[in-house]
Amino acid sequence: MVHADCLITDDTPLGITVSIARRGRSIFLNDRLGPLGLSAGQFPVLMLLARKQNIIQETLVRHYHLDKGTIARAVRKLEDAGYIRRITDPDNRRAVRLFLTEKGEQVIPTLQAINHEWETRISSGLTAEEQATLRRLMKTVAQNSFFTMQEVT
Amino acid sequence: MVHADCLITDDTPLGITVSIARRGRSIFLNDRLGPLGLSAGQFPVLMLLARKQNIIQETLVRHYHLDKGTIARAVRKLEDAGYIRRITDPDNRRAVRLFLTEKGEQVIPTLQAINHEWETRISSGLTAEEQATLRRLMKTVAQNSFFTMQEVT
Repeated sequence: MVHADCLITDDTPLGITVSIARRGRSIFLNDRLGPLGLSAGQFPVLMLLARKQNIIQETLVRHYHLDKGTIARAVRKLEDAGYIRRITDPDNRRAVRLFLTEKGEQVIPTLQAINHEWETRISSGLTAEEQATLRRLMKTVAQNSFFTMQEVT
Repeated sequence: MVHADCLITDDTPLGITVSIARRGRSIFLNDRLGPLGLSAGQFPVLMLLARKQNIIQETLVRHYHLDKGTIARAVRKLEDAGYIRRITDPDNRRAVRLFLTEKGEQVIPTLQAINHEWETRISSGLTAEEQATLRRLMKTVAQNSFFTMQEVT
């Protein structure tokens, strides 16, 4: 591909810079995850299970505010590929609990390295202090975005 | 919808907060643009034409690093709805130049107000200085993301 000039300037609206960051992440994740038989949509599911297992699908939906269909598809693909297993709660047949398999556990360090590589790339040129500030401000933005989504949907 | 607790914490990776911000924007824009017969995908096209007319589709692709099919669909829908017109360059039949129609010109202030409302919502709780910092840091992130996309695709 020809190396085009970057047209992002001080005038570029915040919503557009957020979109470009998000799209770049998706392309980067798909590139790195493809060889593992995974894709960007499955990444957040595995990342959350790395922090907390024995969760229900609804917890994933609430964490990311993704729609139920998207989460259900990601979970099914991960189960088919052997990265996670679903165990139906014997006391509540509607609650399916999610766990990492051994294969899932083993892939987590690779996923963390991929996430770290993305963060390093997109933080290029920022000081450690600026990176910490960015993380803190984007946390507030995501929380505000979460409440906006709850109001709108 | 039940008002669920927000699960975004200090541990939430930057990539996830960016995704949540992006998704919230998309849901918000679709909610506000629906009554105008527009959707989130058409928004960046109109916003760029508001700043600069007489551009070719390739300029849109380069500005947002969206794929050509997505841009082509957005442009076609905007033309069908009477917001923009495409004029073929008489000296170069492959170069189709894009302009706002009168209807397009008239909708721009509304779109700017919608964008402003989104920025106000997601900046809730941030000082003016923090908002300026966020904008500056996200510009760098988007530029880095742009270069990562160029390397990967």
